Amino acid sequence: MENIDEYLLYKDKPGVKWINVEGLHQVEVIAKIGEIYGFHPLVQEDILNTGHRPKLEDYGNFVYIILKVLSFDRKTGKVITEQASLVLGPNYVLSFLENDVDIFDPLKERIRSGLGRIRRMGVDYLFYALIDAIVDNYFIVLENLGERIEFLEERLVTNPSPVTLNSIHRLKTGMLFLAKSVWPLREIIGGLERGDSPLIKESTGIYLRDVYDHAIQASDTIETYRDMITGMLDIYLSSINNRIGEVMKVLTVIATIFIPLTFIVGIYGMNFEYMPELKWRWGYPMVWLIMITVGVFMGVYFRKRKWL
Amino acid sequence: MENIDEYLLYKDKPGVKWINVEGLHQVEVIAKIGEIYGFHPLVQEDILNTGHRPKLEDYGNFVYIILKVLSFDRKTGKVITEQASLVLGPNYVLSFLENDVDIFDPLKERIRSGLGRIRRMGVDYLFYALIDAIVDNYFIVLENLGERIEFLEERLVTNPSPVTLNSIHRLKTGMLFLAKSVWPLREIIGGLERGDSPLIKESTGIYLRDVYDHAIQASDTIETYRDMITGMLDIYLSSINNRIGEVMKVLTVIATIFIPLTFIVGIYGMNFEYMPELKWRWGYPMVWLIMITVGVFMGVYFRKRKWL
Amino acid sequence: MENIDEYLLYKDKPGVKWINVEGLHQVEVIAKIGEIYGFHPLVQEDILNTGHRPKLEDYGNFVYIILKVLSFDRKTGKVITEQASLVLGPNYVLSFLENDVDIFDPLKERIRSGLGRIRRMGVDYLFYALIDAIVDNYFIVLENLGERIEFLEERLVTNPSPVTLNSIHRLKTGMLFLAKSVWPLREIIGGLERGDSPLIKESTGIYLRDVYDHAIQASDTIETYRDMITGMLDIYLSSINNRIGEVMKVLTVIATIFIPLTFIVGIYGMNFEYMPELKWRWGYPMVWLIMITVGVFMGVYFRKRKWL
Amino acid sequence: MENIDEYLLYKDKPGVKWINVEGLHQVEVIAKIGEIYGFHPLVQEDILNTGHRPKLEDYGNFVYIILKVLSFDRKTGKVITEQASLVLGPNYVLSFLENDVDIFDPLKERIRSGLGRIRRMGVDYLFYALIDAIVDNYFIVLENLGERIEFLEERLVTNPSPVTLNSIHRLKTGMLFLAKSVWPLREIIGGLERGDSPLIKESTGIYLRDVYDHAIQASDTIETYRDMITGMLDIYLSSINNRIGEVMKVLTVIATIFIPLTFIVGIYGMNFEYMPELKWRWGYPMVWLIMITVGVFMGVYFRKRKWL
Amino acid sequence: MENIDEYLLYKDKPGVKWINVEGLHQVEVIAKIGEIYGFHPLVQEDILNTGHRPKLEDYGNFVYIILKVLSFDRKTGKVITEQASLVLGPNYVLSFLENDVDIFDPLKERIRSGLGRIRRMGVDYLFYALIDAIVDNYFIVLENLGERIEFLEERLVTNPSPVTLNSIHRLKTGMLFLAKSVWPLREIIGGLERGDSPLIKESTGIYLRDVYDHAIQASDTIETYRDMITGMLDIYLSSINNRIGEVMKVLTVIATIFIPLTFIVGIYGMNFEYMPELKWRWGYPMVWLIMITVGVFMGVYFRKRKWL
Repeated sequence: MENIDEYLLYKDKPGVKWINVEGLHQVEVIAKIGEIYGFHPLVQEDILNTGHRPKLEDYGNFVYIILKVLSFDRKTGKVITEQASLVLGPNYVLSFLENDVDIFDPLKERIRSGLGRIRRMGVDYLFYALIDAIVDNYFIVLENLGERIEFLEERLVTNPSPVTLNSIHRLKTGMLFLAKSVWPLREIIGGLERGDSPLIKESTGIYLRDVYDHAIQASDTIETYRDMITGMLDIYLSSINNRIGEVMKVLTVIATIFIPLTFIVGIYGMNFEYMPELKWRWGYPMVWLIMITVGVFMGVYFRKRKWL
Repeated sequence: MENIDEYLLYKDKPGVKWINVEGLHQVEVIAKIGEIYGFHPLVQEDILNTGHRPKLEDYGNFVYIILKVLSFDRKTGKVITEQASLVLGPNYVLSFLENDVDIFDPLKERIRSGLGRIRRMGVDYLFYALIDAIVDNYFIVLENLGERIEFLEERLVTNPSPVTLNSIHRLKTGMLFLAKSVWPLREIIGGLERGDSPLIKESTGIYLRDVYDHAIQASDTIETYRDMITGMLDIYLSSINNRIGEVMKVLTVIATIFIPLTFIVGIYGMNFEYMPELKWRWGYPMVWLIMITVGVFMGVYFRKRKWL
Repeated sequence: MENIDEYLLYKDKPGVKWINVEGLHQVEVIAKIGEIYGFHPLVQEDILNTGHRPKLEDYGNFVYIILKVLSFDRKTGKVITEQASLVLGPNYVLSFLENDVDIFDPLKERIRSGLGRIRRMGVDYLFYALIDAIVDNYFIVLENLGERIEFLEERLVTNPSPVTLNSIHRLKTGMLFLAKSVWPLREIIGGLERGDSPLIKESTGIYLRDVYDHAIQASDTIETYRDMITGMLDIYLSSINNRIGEVMKVLTVIATIFIPLTFIVGIYGMNFEYMPELKWRWGYPMVWLIMITVGVFMGVYFRKRKWL
Repeated sequence: MENIDEYLLYKDKPGVKWINVEGLHQVEVIAKIGEIYGFHPLVQEDILNTGHRPKLEDYGNFVYIILKVLSFDRKTGKVITEQASLVLGPNYVLSFLENDVDIFDPLKERIRSGLGRIRRMGVDYLFYALIDAIVDNYFIVLENLGERIEFLEERLVTNPSPVTLNSIHRLKTGMLFLAKSVWPLREIIGGLERGDSPLIKESTGIYLRDVYDHAIQASDTIETYRDMITGMLDIYLSSINNRIGEVMKVLTVIATIFIPLTFIVGIYGMNFEYMPELKWRWGYPMVWLIMITVGVFMGVYFRKRKWL
Repeated sequence: MENIDEYLLYKDKPGVKWINVEGLHQVEVIAKIGEIYGFHPLVQEDILNTGHRPKLEDYGNFVYIILKVLSFDRKTGKVITEQASLVLGPNYVLSFLENDVDIFDPLKERIRSGLGRIRRMGVDYLFYALIDAIVDNYFIVLENLGERIEFLEERLVTNPSPVTLNSIHRLKTGMLFLAKSVWPLREIIGGLERGDSPLIKESTGIYLRDVYDHAIQASDTIETYRDMITGMLDIYLSSINNRIGEVMKVLTVIATIFIPLTFIVGIYGMNFEYMPELKWRWGYPMVWLIMITVGVFMGVYFRKRKWL
């Protein structure tokens, strides 16, 4: 795959050709390919500019699609989005990846070994196989995200903290970007499947319908995850309030029991000359009795209100 | 129903045939059936892969649909989702269930006993009857969920706790998955009913319209339940805040009554040499009078504010 | 209206016929009518099964619609939903009500007295008149609900309590069910109005358009009510928090004024042998002066912060 | 405009006629006009019944629309909604207003003075001019509402109180009713503009497109206002919580500083016979030193936590 | 660009003409241009009235669009919206800007230097280039807003205050207005691209499709930003509650430890004559022992509950 010029020589020869460019720093290579295959200048710009949303453009003699390749960075818990441009011509498929990623490796392996349908079918089947490889990869990323959601959900129960909140919030924002990458896919693959382009045979349409189902499923899963994350934020908020309530209860129980008692002992700390109780033989034990009665009464009251 | 090979011999004989495979571990059986009836490889994959969302695929000579069979686990309060694949051919119906479930039992009984319309009508009516059995089953699950919602709603009033919150949240997530299983049904049955396929006669269309209504009703009920659960979460949050308010009130009442009183008794606990009140004959009773006045005033104030 | 068999004799006679069955316990009567007028078995089932959502079914020789008859129970504040099935044939109208309700009474009166257009117009006008009677009834129910919302809104301001919250929540759930009954109406009456069925003359279409407008208006009102109820829940939550804030303020004001004062009197309650202040002639008045200064300062501070 | 019968005499004369009825109490006048111009009974009912939502009805020989005339009551801060019915015939325009309002005054002035296009153009232009006058009036109301929102937004920052909350809530409910009056406008004017009716010439269509844009703009503004009001409610809630937090802080700072100090002075208020510290020469100053140290330490701690 | 009359002389000469009017105070200039190019009076009004929402109007012999030019004021953090009117005629393009802004400067430069496609292509390409310049400018504004969001997000974590809340709220309202400016763009450019107007050649359509993609991307970004801001408000609310919880904890810990201790010292401050403990030799140390035990026990309890 390294020596691209060599490949270009085969341009006019019959047979299926697949040129895979990984890394968009090779601007001149892409320019050369574009020149040879007669791309519109806007297509060349689109291949190099990685900020696009997924889209499908049918230029008649070739079909151009932009997809997003996703990968999950386990360390940061972030989803990395890269751009993939695929071009389907009458007898060639071109693929341009933003970076060296290994999502096409199993496919290359299958081609080399001659296994499966891929060698027998035409160039549009290869095109489908590339899209399929990208979309299948989404489910790996979604599985990782699902695990992360479960992990955070558990931590929300055992130890809710602002750090957890921040993780949830970041996951939510990430989900938003993910949805933007996956949503347009349905339209794109749907457009290919409806067979507007003569470059795609009907026999391949059935496979595209399968990828279409996968794309819908990925969108569905993302929506479900987003709903779940929103639910987690609600739970976080109510668990904070719950904790405030718990703290309040402890304060209230302690204060409510001891404030009246402190008042009682305060009374007999007064220095009036004429306080008969102070001279009573059983004054002191009596005060203890009163205090214990008050304390027990409070305890019973709080137990009845389920605060203890 | 056990000996499948035997059934397959009848393939080319006239008459309606229904092959029901329960349990997808019998991979080789499914492969054999697929071979005999000429399935597309993707259909075979779809039957075995249980992660699909409900869908309808019309292959011309046969119609393939995936539905979800739901059941409610009373112990865990969870809805279990299993996949059912149904194939309608010119003179056969195939059904593949993920596990041994008994939803088709009443139907089998009706066929055996020769009761009802099912023996007189064609193969498409049998197909309808299978879909109907699956969809009718949804209402049993929904009824169970409705009871659970009512139970939680009651507990929310009598004894709101984080455990209740968790149950509600889990129910909400479950509802989300349920909605994903039921929503696509409308489209699928609608597609069948519109009669695009020649395999479905018009007389059966009227029955499909009936199932279609049921599917919409199930979707509606799920939406209603989801709204109700969302409302329950709101109530939970406000009931926590309400309880914090109650606790605050008790603390405030006790503290506001006794803190000033404790201050008063503190005054006459001071050891100044020149404190005329301490020598007064009626000093001590006077203090009591002041304190009772303050206490009564506070009590009246709180009663006016409806805190007592 | 009692003796139904008698009516059935007139079946083949010319002229408009209206058979009104109130109470679905008369299963055999409905079966007989169904037999005579040649209903599909599913229609018979639908008439008897009252759990349906409103729908329109055009069977060619007759049109079958299910509507909901609403009534407001003033005692419980609940909306009661009953099912009405209407059938429009070439020269007959059949109506099946779940219970004895009096919504058709004014209509019967008008027919008996021969007043209004109802005797001059055809069978489809009678059909319209029945729908109109049902839909007009919705506005009475909505008016009752509007009054209830206003009542609760007022109570929310004067005396918010968990009981009010519960009433609001119940009203919200009721509104949800109501919306489900009214929403499909637009589609049904719209379907009738578009005149797909030859049973409905164009001159009646103009009246149906009027009912259609009413149905939209009812839906609109329900949506408005639902938004208002949601707003009430928000207000309830913020009024609880407001009250917690009020309670907090009282506690804080009292505690913040008296805790420092209690500290001061505590100082001079110490029993050190060498405390010069205790021997001062003006020590006691001085302490009072200090305490009054602190108290006034606190009061000014709280007034500035608008807590008093 | 007073003597209506006189106007009616001109019915069959050529030229553009505009009859403007202000105040629906003149039931017999409306009945007479309806009779002369051959209205459908439902139209007559619609003109008199002011509870309708805006709608368009094309009766072939005339077009009937219902619009809402809005006005802002500065005293109560409420939007008053009145109904206007407009009828466009081949050579006449009829307008029925619920009350005496002055929105058509500038138009009348223009007609009298013969200024502008209004005299040169046909009857449909007059029809457009009436609609335009009504829609332009919306912007005056919206401007008033915008000012009120700004006023409340400012008060929310300077002095949030339950009164403000109530004002916001009332504004929100008002906005809801407003939206219901303005929303259907787009459909109505869009319907007129698409030129289904031969009564509206193409040259007028361009003007209707202009009103259409205004209607969309009004809807947009209402939506923006509603979003802003929702945001204000959020701010109110968080500002209450903020204030609770502020109150809490003051309480906590005071209590946390003085409660330990009160404990210390309490120790030396004990009456044990054997308390060596009480006899120390420097005991009292030492206690002061300890208390000042504790106080300063607390102060530094709170400053570090930004509570002071 | 200053002397406009001169330009107007060239009106009937062949070749592409671009007249750019910056500043709408030059009312008479615009009136003159309108007169010469035969504008409908409504177009003239629209150019001068800057309150319009973006729209497209096809007058047959010319196409008129209104767009919004955005700029970000770094000082106030606000987005400034200005109106741009573009007119595409058979051989001319007119552009009217509300103020002197420099968004067309690079374009003018390219025209003067004769670089790029702009000189070779027709008048519709120039029209496209103007739209492209305006839309590309959106991304600069969006980038600035993105930085501001990130800045506020960070401040929310480090130092949440009502000031931050206000900034977020203002940003949210700004986003709302922004969305209203950008949303209609899709429809406008989509309308141009679909090629309804003969003034736009198919070769330019491909470029318009590119701007269309940019418009969608801008809308998408705005939606994402709005969701992020909503999330920030949630975080703000829960961080306030979190802080209240923290404050509560400190208060509770201090109060719960010292209130019982103060009670204990209060006991031995009482002046009863018969209190045996006061005479004990080890009474005082014993009380200290009890108090230390209680204090340690409380400390352990709070540590177990993770409040310390």
